[in-house]
Amino acid sequence: MKLTAQAAGTFAIAPTPFHDDGRIDDKSIDRLTDFYAEVGCDGVTVLGILGEAPKMDAAEAQQVATRFIKRAKTMQTIVGVSAPGFASMRALARASMDAGAAGVMIAPPPSLRTDDQIVNYFKQAEEAIGDDIPWVLQDYPLTLSVIFTPAVIRKIVMDSKSCVMLKHEDWPGLEKITTLRNFQKDGSLRPMSILCGNGGTFLDFEMERGADGAMTGYAFPELLIDVVKLSKAGKRDAAHDLFDAHLPLIRYEQQPGAGLAVRKYVLHKRGVIASSAQRKPGAGITATAKAEVDYLLSRVARVDKRANFQPQSSAAG
Amino acid sequence: MKLTAQAAGTFAIAPTPFHDDGRIDDKSIDRLTDFYAEVGCDGVTVLGILGEAPKMDAAEAQQVATRFIKRAKTMQTIVGVSAPGFASMRALARASMDAGAAGVMIAPPPSLRTDDQIVNYFKQAEEAIGDDIPWVLQDYPLTLSVIFTPAVIRKIVMDSKSCVMLKHEDWPGLEKITTLRNFQKDGSLRPMSILCGNGGTFLDFEMERGADGAMTGYAFPELLIDVVKLSKAGKRDAAHDLFDAHLPLIRYEQQPGAGLAVRKYVLHKRGVIASSAQRKPGAGITATAKAEVDYLLSRVARVDKRANFQPQSSAAG
Amino acid sequence: MKLTAQAAGTFAIAPTPFHDDGRIDDKSIDRLTDFYAEVGCDGVTVLGILGEAPKMDAAEAQQVATRFIKRAKTMQTIVGVSAPGFASMRALARASMDAGAAGVMIAPPPSLRTDDQIVNYFKQAEEAIGDDIPWVLQDYPLTLSVIFTPAVIRKIVMDSKSCVMLKHEDWPGLEKITTLRNFQKDGSLRPMSILCGNGGTFLDFEMERGADGAMTGYAFPELLIDVVKLSKAGKRDAAHDLFDAHLPLIRYEQQPGAGLAVRKYVLHKRGVIASSAQRKPGAGITATAKAEVDYLLSRVARVDKRANFQPQSSAAG
Amino acid sequence: MKLTAQAAGTFAIAPTPFHDDGRIDDKSIDRLTDFYAEVGCDGVTVLGILGEAPKMDAAEAQQVATRFIKRAKTMQTIVGVSAPGFASMRALARASMDAGAAGVMIAPPPSLRTDDQIVNYFKQAEEAIGDDIPWVLQDYPLTLSVIFTPAVIRKIVMDSKSCVMLKHEDWPGLEKITTLRNFQKDGSLRPMSILCGNGGTFLDFEMERGADGAMTGYAFPELLIDVVKLSKAGKRDAAHDLFDAHLPLIRYEQQPGAGLAVRKYVLHKRGVIASSAQRKPGAGITATAKAEVDYLLSRVARVDKRANFQPQSSAAG
Repeated sequence: MKLTAQAAGTFAIAPTPFHDDGRIDDKSIDRLTDFYAEVGCDGVTVLGILGEAPKMDAAEAQQVATRFIKRAKTMQTIVGVSAPGFASMRALARASMDAGAAGVMIAPPPSLRTDDQIVNYFKQAEEAIGDDIPWVLQDYPLTLSVIFTPAVIRKIVMDSKSCVMLKHEDWPGLEKITTLRNFQKDGSLRPMSILCGNGGTFLDFEMERGADGAMTGYAFPELLIDVVKLSKAGKRDAAHDLFDAHLPLIRYEQQPGAGLAVRKYVLHKRGVIASSAQRKPGAGITATAKAEVDYLLSRVARVDKRANFQPQSSAAG
Repeated sequence: MKLTAQAAGTFAIAPTPFHDDGRIDDKSIDRLTDFYAEVGCDGVTVLGILGEAPKMDAAEAQQVATRFIKRAKTMQTIVGVSAPGFASMRALARASMDAGAAGVMIAPPPSLRTDDQIVNYFKQAEEAIGDDIPWVLQDYPLTLSVIFTPAVIRKIVMDSKSCVMLKHEDWPGLEKITTLRNFQKDGSLRPMSILCGNGGTFLDFEMERGADGAMTGYAFPELLIDVVKLSKAGKRDAAHDLFDAHLPLIRYEQQPGAGLAVRKYVLHKRGVIASSAQRKPGAGITATAKAEVDYLLSRVARVDKRANFQPQSSAAG
Repeated sequence: MKLTAQAAGTFAIAPTPFHDDGRIDDKSIDRLTDFYAEVGCDGVTVLGILGEAPKMDAAEAQQVATRFIKRAKTMQTIVGVSAPGFASMRALARASMDAGAAGVMIAPPPSLRTDDQIVNYFKQAEEAIGDDIPWVLQDYPLTLSVIFTPAVIRKIVMDSKSCVMLKHEDWPGLEKITTLRNFQKDGSLRPMSILCGNGGTFLDFEMERGADGAMTGYAFPELLIDVVKLSKAGKRDAAHDLFDAHLPLIRYEQQPGAGLAVRKYVLHKRGVIASSAQRKPGAGITATAKAEVDYLLSRVARVDKRANFQPQSSAAG
Repeated sequence: MKLTAQAAGTFAIAPTPFHDDGRIDDKSIDRLTDFYAEVGCDGVTVLGILGEAPKMDAAEAQQVATRFIKRAKTMQTIVGVSAPGFASMRALARASMDAGAAGVMIAPPPSLRTDDQIVNYFKQAEEAIGDDIPWVLQDYPLTLSVIFTPAVIRKIVMDSKSCVMLKHEDWPGLEKITTLRNFQKDGSLRPMSILCGNGGTFLDFEMERGADGAMTGYAFPELLIDVVKLSKAGKRDAAHDLFDAHLPLIRYEQQPGAGLAVRKYVLHKRGVIASSAQRKPGAGITATAKAEVDYLLSRVARVDKRANFQPQSSAAG
């Protein structure tokens, strides 16, 4: 089932599980996918920035995407196809859709500066992959160093019928959601899904501003799912109460570069992936940091019992 | 009293209060300074990035610094003297010390890239202001786009006897504190104060990693003071409990660019400054954002009664 | 006489002469200004990037600008007033105009990224200095890292009646001149002067594309003047012949950072300034580089006798 | 024959020939390779920045590299293997060496900032490709935005025995060559080849500073070859005379982004490649620019008869 502008809920951004020696860990891919399905994710996004996508060669990227897609079954899978050039982008996009992906996600190359450069890039990207593939626009200035104004996003979306979703992770970003939703009210922007990233750091208010859900890699997707649902149900205080209990850990995970090590550590601790290893170049996690995460987990567990799990192995991570 | 490497506790980063028409608001400077003293700050840092320093001309900058310094009395005042050139830096530094400042703070210009460029810049800066002025090294890559390795910080500090403090706001930054403290343990780095910024977002763990305190602009310096004290007293859970209650607001204030508007809004609401106006170019705060801040304040107030104040005026901000 | 959109010819970008100990050298300012007048420059631009403007404090900048303006007499003087904030920009702009400047030049701060940010910045800048001051827009991406599309330049110019000139130094930049001139032909852009920088590296073709002249710091302004005149007279081959004889030296001078040292060395050698010293932080020039410049001068002199001068002193520079 | 630290002479940086519809043009690869051999190049470097490498997918890159390598016969072929990740870098490097390449070239990713980050990256790169592959370090800050100090280059080279060459295109870069050669004189740096890029803009003096030759894409490799030889033979004036005749065109070709279109236009005009097409996103060349290049060629031809060729087809480019 292809991605549409009505997509909503929680899409987990999946890390790519590796063995300690750097080989791709297929069994952990399966377990991770099952985990996302079991906790109730609506979709999974693979080969994103968090997924160490550039560290894989073309054949590996295709293999990983396919493994996730096949295992995801009823969950929609979005494949990150950002690449330095359109030929590679197209190859991965077509292969992913052939394997059953719901859509693809495209981030801008860091060299783009002017509004026109940005708009033209995505026009060419859509042309490259083909306009039959639903795609997600990733707006993540902190890491990608490309700044989209709301008007530029509107232009991209209005230029490309197959752009169905914004992965929103500008910072600050709350007013941007409001502006885009106002564009839709005044009829200048067609409907599109807005799912939020940034590790969930502003999910509480993003939902209130009109987001459709979350698309991020927090190691407790359960929390994202609950906040999205509570917020949609109008249970504001309950949404914030739960969110606030997790925020200290969310904040800890959202450290640039270091965050992936924390996430893999927690997912490993939860028994979901067999190793927290990253491919080079990658950040490690010190014993002190592990202890800090453990302490944060114990504090979350006071409010959210799901954080009260036992380490998978004594030599975690 | 001049700043030393033993400095500790909480230094508030002061915004510069303006009238609605952009003129400097001297009375609000006085009230703001008194407020910091009353809640128990150990010092105040003026003309920092938060303080809209570049928006003032040379005469105004000197006037603002002097007003704060004179009013601060027993509190130590640090003056941000970062400038595009050393002549301006020297002029403000000498004038500030003559007026009674405890020290100055220097941030690197964004053009610095290599380790040598960074080290040489601070050597020349110290030479420019004179080695009799204690100074604070500001390490703030997110905004300044200059990346200091721990070894580069060590080199700068060992090259300059008058560098007595690191304003630490790298992100991630916890391991950096540990590395610097280890340098001191192994004798390769002399003692220096480390005060932490980033709006306080990681103050809970920064204290545990060995920081001496906080230097940041959170609109509730009381929280910074308490967390610093509780952490130093070894009351870990109590420190985190209080910190966590404020974290949703801390996070909201720490939005790049937008944060200053939030801080001025809260300080205005607290009755400390007469207007939340910024000089151009400046970010505003929408009605929706104000309502979000009000909601966050009401939630903080459930745990910390000090957040339970009434708005100063009905036309706040 | 104020700068207008009809300005044309050659405006020399003046370095700021310093004594070896870093003090401003007033007598060399006089001699340099006289030199520019004698060779036939139409104007002089001071306190630009080449002029080490940020290395002076506010009082010094005003003093240097005034000295040049008073001495320039019939030549028009443009003062660079770019500053990190509008208060400083306004102070220098008003003081310069009071002293008799023809106009001011404004470069964008490096943080500007989107089209809207750029357009808004210059709207606020015009508002800050007052709309009675003719100003020059500096488009220099290599150094300033801000990228103006032709449409953005048009918007800035159409928004501000007092913007009368573009200092054009984009790279590549030839098509940009053509596009802007076409905007004027189709009536969407009002008349404005375009003077070219980049050390003159593309002056031969820039004139053919429609530029009105040169505004740059090549140490032989005579060459710029001649090429501008020959090109306007339709003597294409003669213009290129003279230009090509100088290009090896033009290219050598146009090395980022290092170029200023070369220019001051040549101007010193020509007897125009007393010292080639720069304020810190500044680049020096090695003995090998001096010998290379001397060799290039000797080669230029085979075609252009004016390059056949004797060193001012044996211990030049 | 593998690349060694004794490599010298002229290595042409080859563009990748495409058909008008974007397909790889194998016959033009053959003709281009033969052309380089016939004029006397010592080697050819493929899939560099000029070669539109990122626009090809993994299979295409391997195909292009192999085609060049097989055709080059006695000429050494260097393959650019820069990639966002080490898995892709390794795959292309191993495949290229298996096909008979002499070595590979590695450029840094733009995210590298501190000296340690740079040094570690190349340590990991060497580990990734295997230490049996001779490799070239590309130092090109203008495009890659990574700044290598001479000491960092020394560290990289001393850390990796298989690094045999520096592709030098820093700007300014003359003093850097001198510094590196001095490192070798004082014994702190082992012998390595230095070949110069930047379109040849400073080749005249780079040779005098100690470079071993040229590695760049100027559409007249004959000029590079001659300047290298004349300079090595100590015929300084002759080298400069020939160089200066070409400099106006060299400068025109060296426009960032636009330069490739000029080179492909000239190579097409010379009858070497069948089309001047670039893959998207690519810069075009206007009729005015073509006329400017034609004029420059006619001027070069007054001194260097080899520039006096007739267009290959009336519908050039």
